[in-house]
Amino acid sequence: MNPAASARSGGSARVQGIVRIVGTGLLGASIGLALRERGVDVVLADTSPSALALAVDYGAGRASTAEDSPSLVVVAVPPDITADVVAAELEAFPEAVVTDVASVKLELLNTLQQRDVDLSRYVGSHPMAGRERGGAIMARTDLFVGRPWVICTDAGGAEARVSASIEALALDLGATPIRMGTAEHDRSVALVSHLPQVMSSLLAARLTGAAQSTLQLAGQGLRDTTRIAESDAELWVQILSSNHEPVVELLTALRTDLDELINALDDTTKPGTKRKIANLFSAGARGVSSIPGKHGRDERFVTLTVTIDDKPGELARLLTELGDLGINMEDMRLEHSPGAQVGFVELAVLPEVSERTTADLVDRGWRLV
Amino acid sequence: MNPAASARSGGSARVQGIVRIVGTGLLGASIGLALRERGVDVVLADTSPSALALAVDYGAGRASTAEDSPSLVVVAVPPDITADVVAAELEAFPEAVVTDVASVKLELLNTLQQRDVDLSRYVGSHPMAGRERGGAIMARTDLFVGRPWVICTDAGGAEARVSASIEALALDLGATPIRMGTAEHDRSVALVSHLPQVMSSLLAARLTGAAQSTLQLAGQGLRDTTRIAESDAELWVQILSSNHEPVVELLTALRTDLDELINALDDTTKPGTKRKIANLFSAGARGVSSIPGKHGRDERFVTLTVTIDDKPGELARLLTELGDLGINMEDMRLEHSPGAQVGFVELAVLPEVSERTTADLVDRGWRLV
Repeated sequence: MNPAASARSGGSARVQGIVRIVGTGLLGASIGLALRERGVDVVLADTSPSALALAVDYGAGRASTAEDSPSLVVVAVPPDITADVVAAELEAFPEAVVTDVASVKLELLNTLQQRDVDLSRYVGSHPMAGRERGGAIMARTDLFVGRPWVICTDAGGAEARVSASIEALALDLGATPIRMGTAEHDRSVALVSHLPQVMSSLLAARLTGAAQSTLQLAGQGLRDTTRIAESDAELWVQILSSNHEPVVELLTALRTDLDELINALDDTTKPGTKRKIANLFSAGARGVSSIPGKHGRDERFVTLTVTIDDKPGELARLLTELGDLGINMEDMRLEHSPGAQVGFVELAVLPEVSERTTADLVDRGWRLV
Repeated sequence: MNPAASARSGGSARVQGIVRIVGTGLLGASIGLALRERGVDVVLADTSPSALALAVDYGAGRASTAEDSPSLVVVAVPPDITADVVAAELEAFPEAVVTDVASVKLELLNTLQQRDVDLSRYVGSHPMAGRERGGAIMARTDLFVGRPWVICTDAGGAEARVSASIEALALDLGATPIRMGTAEHDRSVALVSHLPQVMSSLLAARLTGAAQSTLQLAGQGLRDTTRIAESDAELWVQILSSNHEPVVELLTALRTDLDELINALDDTTKPGTKRKIANLFSAGARGVSSIPGKHGRDERFVTLTVTIDDKPGELARLLTELGDLGINMEDMRLEHSPGAQVGFVELAVLPEVSERTTADLVDRGWRLV
């Protein structure tokens, strides 16, 4: 059974006992909602009574009472108070495993290690999920489905049961648990999350004061590259401050590329400058293609392009026939121009079946581009 | 009647006579395809016989012959040969209005003005449309629908009929004609198009050589910010070289922000540094909000997200049922995270059928997000 389906069936949770969630923002409320769906007893705490009431109303759990004895505590508060709250929760619930969902882990761990707290029941974790807008109101049970959930196993809690219970939590939420060292995690998110955020904000900041006649020319490229610049400024100050070393390293390397590009564009007649610019763009294209998953052309797969007539049922027929042929599609994209007489279906298949798929489809009369 | 609907009715074109399109890449083929739908006699020319044959097969027009006497010539060739081709077309067809679709206009105009050609029949233009991947195969009749189409009215062709015929072309393709000075156009696209491209490529270039364990953490933010970095490197060398002055100006201003951010992050304990970082992010958020009609997606359609199990035949079943329900999909996108047990199908449907589609799908047991 898949996670989403079993989530809805209730009572099938891997996590045991009461789960206490501290902080009922987007992440806390989403975790609560999803666990409640699995029949888990979720108790919520938040310094803001109104935020707490909203999350309870929303179905993310019940308000915690002094009697509740959680087996697992999830700290989902802003980064700058996470260490304090984790320490307090470890002390308040001496039987519970405690984790947090802050997006930077090393500084937090260092802070905790400098305190007089027993970290054997603590494991830091980081669900790679979020939205531009926060708050319980944006919470969704499927926020974590299919997303990586990093569990920093080299932290305090050496006990296997501690990591295992966070893994159970991640699996209950449909996420993919990934064990990773704390420092490696921070370096990784600096690249895949913090750097894109900085670039998006730097770019979007250039738009302030632009004339409306200029902005009316904006297309999808500008929209996509600036979407995440809408994110909460205060939160990002905390994240970047906390992870400044790897971020500065990346920004400095990027500045070198930027300097080189500016120099090249300053005098494009100088020999070799066009090559320099082309190299940067080629490196960018290579970089994109290295991102796993649907985006762009995933190098693990071969893309076949099939022409289909623009009439109802053609796409369904193609997919049905692929099923008959036993071909498993890894990804699919329909390119169809309204009004055009044909559409193109891009199918991503594993390299080992691509030749057979091509031959079988041609045999059945499909046209491949 | 909306542009797309009237486009389908055929024979209602504003443009008169034969339209000759030189260059059958993405833009040329899309223009041809859309004009053909309106019953316009489109003749195509391309230095590559195979590219020409493909565009003809695709329905973008017929191959040009020596007898054809076009009233309008659209030059849609790479930027670095646009001036040559425009000059040659002006000479070859002394009755025709000639335009081009190159994305930088001032250098081109200067080049043309230095030649011994009569520019009274020339107006440069720039449809703000494109895709990461080029070629006739990616052409769509609706590529320009709702997009701005800049017409540089301060160029050579002072005659009103000259600008008017490009405006007619833009309107026939469903685009929004915008008259703008040549220099203003170049400064504008430097901001809304060239700067995002550079930022996306600079960012994506940092991904080369990253470990797979790092890249597996990539989320939608990274995917969105790097999508356009897939674009053709050689084309971008031409575009940036041709528009280097405004681009360098923007990049230099951005580098100042970047320097300030790096300095702030280097020592976040210094008073005022967190404020500096917050200011940058706030400016970014303000910048995004200044983009008109920002929220992505094609505004003509409503997007419904359906959860499907990751097993063979599920997508086919969904599409078959949509067909049974008589729902016409305008576009479709499969969002599927490798290793996840579910995928999300984003269906674009017309607003008027979205409620019924939702109800019908839920009735049939599909889960909508």
